[in-house]
Amino acid sequence: MTSRPRIPPKDFPRPPARKYAGTREDAARWVRDVLRTQILDGAFGGLAAPRPMLPPENELAKEWGVSRNAIREALDLLRAEGLITRVQGAGTFVTGAKLRQRIDRLEGLAESLAGHQLSVQNEVLSARESTATPSVADKLDIPEGSPILFIERLRSVANVPLSLDTTSLRPEAIDALDGANLAEEDVFRLLEDKLGVRLGQAENTVEAVAADKGTARHLGVRVGSPVLLLHRLSYLEDGTPFDLESVRYRGDRLSLVSVNPRVRGSDTETSD
Amino acid sequence: MTSRPRIPPKDFPRPPARKYAGTREDAARWVRDVLRTQILDGAFGGLAAPRPMLPPENELAKEWGVSRNAIREALDLLRAEGLITRVQGAGTFVTGAKLRQRIDRLEGLAESLAGHQLSVQNEVLSARESTATPSVADKLDIPEGSPILFIERLRSVANVPLSLDTTSLRPEAIDALDGANLAEEDVFRLLEDKLGVRLGQAENTVEAVAADKGTARHLGVRVGSPVLLLHRLSYLEDGTPFDLESVRYRGDRLSLVSVNPRVRGSDTETSD
Repeated sequence: MTSRPRIPPKDFPRPPARKYAGTREDAARWVRDVLRTQILDGAFGGLAAPRPMLPPENELAKEWGVSRNAIREALDLLRAEGLITRVQGAGTFVTGAKLRQRIDRLEGLAESLAGHQLSVQNEVLSARESTATPSVADKLDIPEGSPILFIERLRSVANVPLSLDTTSLRPEAIDALDGANLAEEDVFRLLEDKLGVRLGQAENTVEAVAADKGTARHLGVRVGSPVLLLHRLSYLEDGTPFDLESVRYRGDRLSLVSVNPRVRGSDTETSD
Repeated sequence: MTSRPRIPPKDFPRPPARKYAGTREDAARWVRDVLRTQILDGAFGGLAAPRPMLPPENELAKEWGVSRNAIREALDLLRAEGLITRVQGAGTFVTGAKLRQRIDRLEGLAESLAGHQLSVQNEVLSARESTATPSVADKLDIPEGSPILFIERLRSVANVPLSLDTTSLRPEAIDALDGANLAEEDVFRLLEDKLGVRLGQAENTVEAVAADKGTARHLGVRVGSPVLLLHRLSYLEDGTPFDLESVRYRGDRLSLVSVNPRVRGSDTETSD
């Protein structure tokens, strides 16, 4: 059990030399530790793979020079940590290597991907004048039925679908964004540049929902798959609500991150 | 089509008197507008119901004194807004009445529920000394295998499961929280009171995942249902990582909310 892996995982540094007592449990822990590092560092396809998978157990056992039972035990440990998930009949999927996007600041996808060297693709599915439904009108503080600019885009990373984004913008955006290159330029920046406005705060609401048929088709997942749904209402600095987005992220591809201070006073009622 | 509903929805004020041209489309819009208000205000069981549902179409048509086609059209409009979802053979579920919890400040469940007059139940499933796995040790900045206090709780609102929470606390918490009433007291407050520490910032990561078997059983949902998974690492004011939580919320019961300023400088790379 103390033998080194005979075939080092592709494109990955060999695990550091260690001494083990030679029990299966030790081997399992060793395999787990190295696999964890690899998973978190994006091996096995990581963010670039449609559904990152681990090799089959017998292949792992061969590669690592340990028993299949030790591999199974290692996978159990990783599963307990939520890093992998086993799907009956399909294999073991890596769930611990999601793209991380900040929501406490308006971080760009490109910024989130810094260091990953993965490309971003935006496909503009729709960009047209539409009319505000009551709920959109209410959010954007315009009369029901007002004209709005409606944009729908499919965003992919490394050519794998990541999110389906719909954006509803106040009437002022219709002319301002006419002819804009929405596939390559940032809506926020276009607004600031072309309208001479400054964006202020944003309200974010995050939900977990099941993928509907259309979303599933666009994102390349099964109907009912977990989707992380972000609603974001962005205001101008003068307090005008301007940009209402709904972003449906593939649940297996992205997590949203925020860092927040502990607020006191009436807020010391904590949720924990 | 201009007739008023014959049976006003239970426990809800009658819709305001309006004039309509009498077309099906008008009736549909009228029904939709009133139903939307009712949904957002928590009618049809709202947060207190396990799976809030709309009455069947024929019942709605009768109640509102409009054609079934008008009801169907109204439901299509509400569905397009994401307020309801139709499940073949099961009926129409209300999805727009989720509990909203802030993550940009440590808001308590009780605080989130202010105005709803719904009770909160905490069931302590486990509260015991455990040992830090490598990932927990890494997060809490303690050696692997260190003793930790591990707490698992099922939280319900109005006796309907809301979330399954696991908490791992640094070794100092083991004695401090011995015998504490975890079903009724707040872990953050207990830590501050008993250890004389002050909590500082928290890092939140939010994912959408499919409910595993155990989670599904505890939360009363089907395996594979969308779960909103919040990981929160809370630090003391001196920067010590102290409290690591994983909270699995029922996707159909809660959304997480944050309000954030637009950060500029290097952060103007936006995600639009």
